Parts: sequence; structure tokens; C-alpha cells
Amino acid sequence: MILTVTLNAALDVTYQVPAVEWDGVNRVAAVHRRAGGKGVNVARVLAALGQEVLVTGLAGGPTGRAIEADLGAAGLPAALAPIAGESRTTLAVSQPSGATLFNEPGPRVSEDELGDFLTHYESLLDGARAVVISGSLPQGVPADVYARLAAVAAARGVPAIVDADGEPLRHAPGGRPAVVKPNAEELARAVPHGTPEEGAQALRERGAEAVVVSQGEAGLLAVTAGGVLRARMPYKVEGNPTGAGDALVAGLALGLVERSPWPERLRRAAALGAAAVAAPVAGDFDRDVYAHVHPLIEIV
Amino acid sequence: MILTVTLNAALDVTYQVPAVEWDGVNRVAAVHRRAGGKGVNVARVLAALGQEVLVTGLAGGPTGRAIEADLGAAGLPAALAPIAGESRTTLAVSQPSGATLFNEPGPRVSEDELGDFLTHYESLLDGARAVVISGSLPQGVPADVYARLAAVAAARGVPAIVDADGEPLRHAPGGRPAVVKPNAEELARAVPHGTPEEGAQALRERGAEAVVVSQGEAGLLAVTAGGVLRARMPYKVEGNPTGAGDALVAGLALGLVERSPWPERLRRAAALGAAAVAAPVAGDFDRDVYAHVHPLIEIV
Repeated sequence: MILTVTLNAALDVTYQVPAVEWDGVNRVAAVHRRAGGKGVNVARVLAALGQEVLVTGLAGGPTGRAIEADLGAAGLPAALAPIAGESRTTLAVSQPSGATLFNEPGPRVSEDELGDFLTHYESLLDGARAVVISGSLPQGVPADVYARLAAVAAARGVPAIVDADGEPLRHAPGGRPAVVKPNAEELARAVPHGTPEEGAQALRERGAEAVVVSQGEAGLLAVTAGGVLRARMPYKVEGNPTGAGDALVAGLALGLVERSPWPERLRRAAALGAAAVAAPVAGDFDRDVYAHVHPLIEIV
Repeated sequence: MILTVTLNAALDVTYQVPAVEWDGVNRVAAVHRRAGGKGVNVARVLAALGQEVLVTGLAGGPTGRAIEADLGAAGLPAALAPIAGESRTTLAVSQPSGATLFNEPGPRVSEDELGDFLTHYESLLDGARAVVISGSLPQGVPADVYARLAAVAAARGVPAIVDADGEPLRHAPGGRPAVVKPNAEELARAVPHGTPEEGAQALRERGAEAVVVSQGEAGLLAVTAGGVLRARMPYKVEGNPTGAGDALVAGLALGLVERSPWPERLRRAAALGAAAVAAPVAGDFDRDVYAHVHPLIEIV
């Protein structure tokens, strides 16, 4: 089983409105509700690829129960730890001319709740072949938590992938994760000077075993113990980049549990990322695009 | 106990956003979630006045559970009947310059679910001194349902107040309710010709025992078996008119169970309506405004 951790799990809601009347009353034509958060999206992609997954993280209040209900409906096994606060909702008001997003502040997590989660997390690692730790942190959770989660996994021989931004990314290498996966902007924020390769190398020097940098259309850069590799995309896939990073991380996790060579891991991760761009909803990917782009990706 | 029926119970959500960036990403500064729907607001006012209440209606999905959880947290006894569909959310995106409202389409109710509710409703009437039936109908529910609910109550000697619009209002008098409470616009839609007094009289002729028409700042018009009465407001209360009609209906329900004379009923109902305008949230009322305005209302 691959464990995915989503400390700030969300209910992703989409309102379709033909033409929003701002400062007026709008009838919503259609509503979509779906469990979200980066780790949930990673789990969806892994499950679609036939992998056993387990979703963990924190969930609270009626919104937390809605998240759990949707995971159940989607057939995604979940073992979320309860919190008193209410899980966040993200709302996209979508009209033909564009979308307006509203992100709730989300719950505040107490020290005791985080402590209970850590105990719960340790028990789940027993059956895990890899753990994916990704996304934003709820309020009250210290920025080094991803480093701690990775370290606990490493101590049990479970390789961890961390996909984070800001302070949690800066701390992550300290937990000696198998892979840290920033995108180019996140890496530039974490290591402000030098080239992406130098930045990735800096994160390796701080403890990460490998660093994979997603660079959008420019493909992937991987800095590993075995050297530097790049995945070059054969063409631009049009669509919705939300969730592309999560599909990419799912590909990396698969490579990790299958212990496949790095060129193969990167090719699959890059192909899944591109196939996710072609799918309208985060957590999905387009199988035809995946099959088409995969053999054309150049590893150099 | 006073029973309030809310077939289209809602979760009323408010997002406070300092300045909305349309077509952009917005951080929500504060979120408020509260069980809503007209019957729920009526129950809140009655409970605040020390009355025993019971909230019934339909609730489904995670949003239905959120509604029930909020009623529980507010100390409002509830016995909602379950439906498979998901209860609706109303969202108000509030910024200093104004508010944008989004109304979800809400659930579709099956014939079986409605049948189960009617059985449930009958059993709840046993302990009821009055029943308040108000608000919109979910999809799939026939427009004569309020007439049926009133008729079932009448057959058991429980007086009913119906607060509805459109087809449900046109049908309502057929159930011989004790009071039908449209506002001026609703009455004009239901009985397009003649004065408000003639319109109210027409609803009485179709079966309503009394008709109370809310006319905003102009006060109330009551057409009863004992004649025509008007409540005249002493001054305009500034504020939020949402929920004023529900407070007014709560006042009428109170008059019904206390069998108070019509002038007294009207004065209290009008004072509660005005006091609700002075409170920012539907279902609340301002006790100071209530105490101040009540003795000044003129009944003619």
C-alpha cells in the first residue's frame, strides 16, 4: 500500500453559473463536490493505476465528514484522524468567461490533535511501501512537520516523497526523504540563488536523497545520487495544469515502490503530469494522452 | 410544542472577503455556517422567546448532516426526515461594497421520500400546538404539498400558518390553514387583480381562516373572520430585511397558541418583524428594538 498524507484535506466545490451577477442573486446551475487536497489527488491517480492506496491526514466537522463520504464513494480507502475544527472548502465559481476561486482559511489544529495524528500515522506506516506527503499545512501545525513525517518513515524503512512549498519545503530535506518535488517557482523561493540544478543540489546537500523539479512545458529536472537527468516533453498538452503535479508525484511514488531506474521513473512521472493537464479535474488523467506522450518523452 | 416545517432546509454560508478579485484566487477571511430555511429561522425566534419548538423537514447528504449538527449546537430540537439527495447550500460572498449570493439548485425528492415524510409529519403533530409551514419547495415536491400539510394538521385540530410564494401559496388556502402569510408582492402574484385587502379576502374565500399581508415599512394588513385590521409602524427600522418575515410569522404562531386577540397578535408580529430587521442575521432579532417599537405600533 502507498500511504498519502493530506494534513489540510479539503472539499473541492465547483459552482457552474452561466453568467455571474456580482452583487446580485445567482442561481447555481450545477454543483460538484469532491474530496481534494494534493495527497487525495495523488491517491486517486495511484488507485486509477491499480495501486493499493490509503489516504490519511486530518478531517473535522461536517466538511470533514463530507470529505470522508466522497472518498468512500470513490472507493479510496481512508483513515483520516479527527480534529475539532472544520475542514476547509475550496470553491470555484465557474462561468464560461473564467473562474473565481475562494479558499477558506481552514481549521486550526491543536498540539494534542497533531500528536494523536503522529501516533496514528506511525501505525499506518506498518503496511506502507512508500508515503507521499504533500500540500499545504493547516493553521497551528509547525513548518517542520513534513520533515518529521519523513524522518519517522525513514526510521521504519519507508521511503517518503515530499511535495511542499515555503517553510515546509525548506525544512523537508532534514527528514531525509527519498524525493523532494518542488516546482520551479517553489524551488526558487526555497533556494533563492543559482540555477534550478544548483537549487536542487542544495536541497540534496541538506538531506534529500533526490530532488525532482517540475518545470511545466520544459519538463522535469532530477538531481539524484546517480547524477542529473532531464525529461523533455515532446509537445505542449493544452488543458488544466491543476493536479498535474499530483499526477507526477504519483508517477514518482510508483517508481519508488517498483524500484525502477530513474530514467523510467521520470518518463512515467512526466507522462502522467502531461496526461493530468489533459483531464479537466485534478486527480484525473487522460489515458490516451498518457499512452501517446509516454514513449515520446526524451530522457537526457 | 410549535412544529416548524422546512422542506428545503439549507446550510447558509457566509464568506467574508475584504475585496473580491473576480476571475482570481481569493482568501476567505472568515466563514460562517448556519442552518437556514424559513422554518428554521421561525424556530430560532420562537426558541429565543422561550417557546418549545421542533424543527422538521427534509435533510440529506453531508450538507443535511451539517444542518442537523448546527441545529444541535444551537439547542434547537430537530426531527428532520432523511432524503438521498444533498440538501442545498446558500452562499453569500460578503465584501464591504455588497454581497453576491449563490443559491444551489438543491435536492430532488422522490415520491417515496415525500410519502415517508408525510407519515413522519403526522406523528410529530401529536405533540404540536401549532405548525408553521414555510419556505420554498425542493424539486420533485408537488405544489399542493403545503395545502396537504395544513389539511392533515387541521384534521387533528392543530392550527397551521403557511408562508409561501407562487403555486404553493395559490394552493395553500385549500388546506384550510389558520393563517396564510404572504408579503405584498407574493399576494399580488397569487391574486393579480384588486387591492391587497381584496387579494387577502380572495385567499380567505378559498379556505384560509385569516390572511396576514406584510407590507414592509407600511406595516401589516390582517383580514380575519372578525374583520380587517392594520398594524402601522411608528418609524422605519434600518437594517437587513432578510428573516423579518420569519420573525413576524413566529409572532403570529405565538398569538395562535396563546389565543390572544388579533390586535395583540398583530402588534407582536409587527414588532418582531421590525426587531429582526435590526439584527444582522436571519433568525435573530434585536430585543431592545422589540421592546421599543412594540408599544408604539398602532392597530387600526
